Amino acid sequence: MNKKFIIAVLVSNISGVLSRVSGMFTRRGFNIDSLTVGETESSDFSRITIAFRGDDYMKDQLIGQLNKLHDVKEVQVLDSSDSVIRELVLIKVRNTAESRQDVMTAVEIFRSKIIDYSPTALCCELTGDSSKINAFIELLKPYGIIEMCRTGLVALERGENSLKPVK
Amino acid sequence: MNKKFIIAVLVSNISGVLSRVSGMFTRRGFNIDSLTVGETESSDFSRITIAFRGDDYMKDQLIGQLNKLHDVKEVQVLDSSDSVIRELVLIKVRNTAESRQDVMTAVEIFRSKIIDYSPTALCCELTGDSSKINAFIELLKPYGIIEMCRTGLVALERGENSLKPVK
Repeated sequence: MNKKFIIAVLVSNISGVLSRVSGMFTRRGFNIDSLTVGETESSDFSRITIAFRGDDYMKDQLIGQLNKLHDVKEVQVLDSSDSVIRELVLIKVRNTAESRQDVMTAVEIFRSKIIDYSPTALCCELTGDSSKINAFIELLKPYGIIEMCRTGLVALERGENSLKPVK
Repeated sequence: MNKKFIIAVLVSNISGVLSRVSGMFTRRGFNIDSLTVGETESSDFSRITIAFRGDDYMKDQLIGQLNKLHDVKEVQVLDSSDSVIRELVLIKVRNTAESRQDVMTAVEIFRSKIIDYSPTALCCELTGDSSKINAFIELLKPYGIIEMCRTGLVALERGENSLKPVK
């Protein structure tokens, strides 16, 4: 049975780690829903957040393999009930006299922000969990989405714990 | 001379594309500053946004190589003067009686949002361009950053144009 997982991987900030980590998913035929890699509080490490689907057995195997990589310093499975999970999306929508007011209402209700505006198109940004972002996208679809770009999920455990290098 | 580049790569939404694309950077010794991959307006394609540094010659070579990959449908270099560029960061900061008011003031001025709060730590989210996010991080550092997670950049060209598959 396929479940959704979010894992955070703390890695050395060197060239090649990303392709080694993503290659590990590929070779096992995992479908990655999203992947982000960015700086952390230390310039020595990057943090890769991966959302993917699979069963528990596959997930455990994968984590075991990731932990064997020299540049992987720690792996954490994030429990959605005990984490803050966010995603950012930029959406470019058609701007027409007929649809403008409807789009503006949607933007306002979702507390989205318009970051570009031209006579024929407008671009808005929205931050939230995936269900909020999916609902916003569905709402805007009838007005004509020209282009869209999602960052993929980032997540931190609630409370004062943090992901630290263990090797 | 090293310049900063942001490129958007439209790829087929299949397993393995990400490691092929990131591997292309690795083999050339490029240092990727950030990489995001997420869904687009079409379920057939994913969009990879990569921020990296290099010279113009290296950049052109890389784009030529990317275009040769079968699963790469289009590559666009985003000009920062004509694009909306955003990033999302989650930052977990120590929560103490002494620092609380200062942190809250910074959160308010940067229009950040607190998304988790415990007696010892609080977590805030911020969306903006890299310079805004860097300034916010610098401001919070003295109060004790416990953990931090950046999505990396996403970017869309201003106006009504969009990235379309050309092959």
